[in-house]
Amino acid sequence: MRYALGVEYDGSEFLGWQRLSKPGEPGDDTVQQALETALSTIADARIATTCAGRTDAGVHAQCNVVHFDTDAVRDPRGWVLGTTSRLPLSVTVRWCVPVADDFNARFSAIARRYRYTLRNQPVRPALGRQWLSWERVPLDAQAMHEAAQVLVGEQDFTAFRTVHCQAPHARRDLQAISVTRSGDDVVVEVRANAFLHHMVRNIVGSLLVVGRGDRPPAWIAELLAGRDRKAAGPTAPSAGLVFVGPLYPPGFGLPDEVTA
Amino acid sequence: MRYALGVEYDGSEFLGWQRLSKPGEPGDDTVQQALETALSTIADARIATTCAGRTDAGVHAQCNVVHFDTDAVRDPRGWVLGTTSRLPLSVTVRWCVPVADDFNARFSAIARRYRYTLRNQPVRPALGRQWLSWERVPLDAQAMHEAAQVLVGEQDFTAFRTVHCQAPHARRDLQAISVTRSGDDVVVEVRANAFLHHMVRNIVGSLLVVGRGDRPPAWIAELLAGRDRKAAGPTAPSAGLVFVGPLYPPGFGLPDEVTA
Repeated sequence: MRYALGVEYDGSEFLGWQRLSKPGEPGDDTVQQALETALSTIADARIATTCAGRTDAGVHAQCNVVHFDTDAVRDPRGWVLGTTSRLPLSVTVRWCVPVADDFNARFSAIARRYRYTLRNQPVRPALGRQWLSWERVPLDAQAMHEAAQVLVGEQDFTAFRTVHCQAPHARRDLQAISVTRSGDDVVVEVRANAFLHHMVRNIVGSLLVVGRGDRPPAWIAELLAGRDRKAAGPTAPSAGLVFVGPLYPPGFGLPDEVTA
Repeated sequence: MRYALGVEYDGSEFLGWQRLSKPGEPGDDTVQQALETALSTIADARIATTCAGRTDAGVHAQCNVVHFDTDAVRDPRGWVLGTTSRLPLSVTVRWCVPVADDFNARFSAIARRYRYTLRNQPVRPALGRQWLSWERVPLDAQAMHEAAQVLVGEQDFTAFRTVHCQAPHARRDLQAISVTRSGDDVVVEVRANAFLHHMVRNIVGSLLVVGRGDRPPAWIAELLAGRDRKAAGPTAPSAGLVFVGPLYPPGFGLPDEVTA
């Protein structure tokens, strides 16, 4: 039997999603390890998970999606409440749905959405600092938004991937990106079929250079065309980044929040 | 010279605002102690502060206001940046303004505003849990809002004060209260000239009983008239409560966010 889970977590206490130890070994401060340990207790058998977005250290998730296979018979409510009760307070299982064997949390996803929040004020924020990034220089959100539109489309994002990125190629279909101001917060929302390693944080880091007025909006187009990571802005800090979640085609019976 | 400061803090790591030790003694995990220690370092003299809202353990502040007197000559920017640099990451000085001697952070305030946020979903929240309260039963925010309107006006709030409240009387002028739903969040916003001990959390605790459908909206009017704390709902948890800030009359030269 295959199940899909929606998983919410505060990444500030984790080394990232991906398990660093072997299955069944003791804790290694990753979300995957914490989740698989809790699931395995409920299933009374070793459970391995596959997820939609392997978030980095310090990055949060509103609704990451995983699937796992098991012979254990539990109703979805049992998986949700039982697993959550065995997870640290920084992780919650939002929902559980039985899915067909052709559903794969990673490969069935047709889009992934991220949100990056910058608190734009003269002094560092205290309340909410765990999932905000701080920028003291007043930002021109409109200039950032205009600059970002050149990134939309299926393109080579070599300029915005880390040197550690293991993807075989850098072409991604960036479907939408917006930069909006809400009071003291500047929020970057981006959707693509998939993302390269550090791609969102590198895009935000370069948009920040434009937002501060240090480069014109057209600079983003130059960076993209130049395909040179060293020319782009620095990687923005992890705390401001939330993986909003993946999107799947209708027909898998998944909740609305992850259905395109 | 008298200064006013706007102070933001994440109360989850503190025993509340009010200093428990004597001035100059080592740390006691209160916001006041942390702030006075930092200010005293910058002033190179012992600084004592008076605040607008003495928040309880676990309660946050978006903009608490304090005043202090000092002979030390520093520009406002120096107080802000110097003090913040010596505070834990859970506290920030947002601004500093020199004020006349007749300004008193506590007694000059004509209103105080609080916001209480309930995440209303079947499972406990992970992301943002430090300043959310969790309610699993679906809430009728409209019924809560209607029920709350009877609290508006200058009235005796004995039903909503804790037995530990030391105020000489229970009459307060509750100027406005609203309950609104935004997605999975139900937000209670309330403004009064001043509040009794645990007053906001006790009001929210009783509104929750109405929101769950366990009592009709008219029950809140009965509670208020009955003046019996034991009849009201339980005190809502501290994590959901934020002291938005006080309001002062115009003319003190304070920032807009704290000027009526």
